[in-house]
Amino acid sequence: MKIARFSHADAILFGILDDEELVVLDGDPMVGGYEPTGERVPLADVRLLAPVIPRSKVVAVGKNYREHAEEMGGEAPGEPLLFLKPNTSIIGPNDQIVLPWQSGQVEYEGELAIVIGRVAKNVPPERAAEAIYGYTVANDVTARDLQRADGQWTRAKGFDTFCPIGPVIETELEGDAVLQTRLNGTVVQQAPVTDMVHGIAAIVAHASSVFTLLPGDIILTGTPAGVGRIASGDRIDVTVSGIGTLTNTVR
Amino acid sequence: MKIARFSHADAILFGILDDEELVVLDGDPMVGGYEPTGERVPLADVRLLAPVIPRSKVVAVGKNYREHAEEMGGEAPGEPLLFLKPNTSIIGPNDQIVLPWQSGQVEYEGELAIVIGRVAKNVPPERAAEAIYGYTVANDVTARDLQRADGQWTRAKGFDTFCPIGPVIETELEGDAVLQTRLNGTVVQQAPVTDMVHGIAAIVAHASSVFTLLPGDIILTGTPAGVGRIASGDRIDVTVSGIGTLTNTVR
Repeated sequence: MKIARFSHADAILFGILDDEELVVLDGDPMVGGYEPTGERVPLADVRLLAPVIPRSKVVAVGKNYREHAEEMGGEAPGEPLLFLKPNTSIIGPNDQIVLPWQSGQVEYEGELAIVIGRVAKNVPPERAAEAIYGYTVANDVTARDLQRADGQWTRAKGFDTFCPIGPVIETELEGDAVLQTRLNGTVVQQAPVTDMVHGIAAIVAHASSVFTLLPGDIILTGTPAGVGRIASGDRIDVTVSGIGTLTNTVR
Repeated sequence: MKIARFSHADAILFGILDDEELVVLDGDPMVGGYEPTGERVPLADVRLLAPVIPRSKVVAVGKNYREHAEEMGGEAPGEPLLFLKPNTSIIGPNDQIVLPWQSGQVEYEGELAIVIGRVAKNVPPERAAEAIYGYTVANDVTARDLQRADGQWTRAKGFDTFCPIGPVIETELEGDAVLQTRLNGTVVQQAPVTDMVHGIAAIVAHASSVFTLLPGDIILTGTPAGVGRIASGDRIDVTVSGIGTLTNTVR
């Protein structure tokens, strides 16, 4: 099932995507449940928004695909390496990534993101699925020069607009899902999500051993090899098969 | 003026501290203003809570007192070095800091914290005061062994209970305010807040050049020399003159 958050006729609503229509919901699916209202609106008539704005955390995992860790000049760590992005960095599908003046090297990082559905602390890997509401697509936009200069990644990955997510939350993830990033139509990253060094259950277990995870928190699971620079006017499409394509432009 | 958040008779309320009483407010002072209700309750009858739970960011600044940077084996960076703590790490006055099993070396870091009062982006230093609602006291609790092991500080500084704040928000900061930390009654850190390498205006300007700051965001301004280990049963008092004392115990 695909859940979208969208604006329509001056309201911000959640809906279930049904082919080319949205079944409008009453309530927030991640917090407190929902009821279908009976209303349907054509997808073409709405503006899709980031499917969730975390009230607590955007957690992310660094160096979680072996070939990407190598292209960064390191190796994948033995445990998931956690960092945080602020919720002010989130934008939705078709929103613009704004290049900050502080950086001369901003790069895309296409990723699968986990959306948390329950309060979760010290979740064992075998129960991780119970904590997960669904999955979306993310772009962990990174100012590579500042990442190197600062040591801490907070600034490099925390600028406004540096966390596009969407287009929807899909409650089920296909076992053979493939992540693909295209820069101006050219494929630049492609990997099955099973190439992750630390898988989804291990990431949820690890993150929840540190933080209490709250409904609406998201966890970006790392990017595969092939990261590269973006410039004003570029278009980046990140697709995870079974979820959809997150498209953003750059200025 | 000192603003407290507290629980009283099953309600969570804001109030203005007036000697040994709280003048109860209607509304959230950081978001949307407030009106006094006319009701007054004795301070002794309430439980003080963390004076704010940020809906967006707990920003913190690393290595911002020269002697502390030196005790960490480095030097203070030329710009404020930013990192984030999750809002799930926040606890209030008299709450317990819980030592996580993952660490064998948890340390206190007494700090002055800035509380943001307005949406603020690219604020010049000379206008930083307009973005500030007030100031509180914080303890940037840190698992020093994990900080060294991970490189990224997120896990080491992000555990639940690792961000005590309080006891109140003071809207004015005395120019000669002194920060003092006591471990089981013994003074272990003491410095005037003017010893900061990057001052309050510079920190707000820098943070707002990266993130949009939102009302209720807090910024921890760094710790002076004298950090040290805490163990179960310890009591830590952090005082900033003119604001108050934040007391927490450890288990």
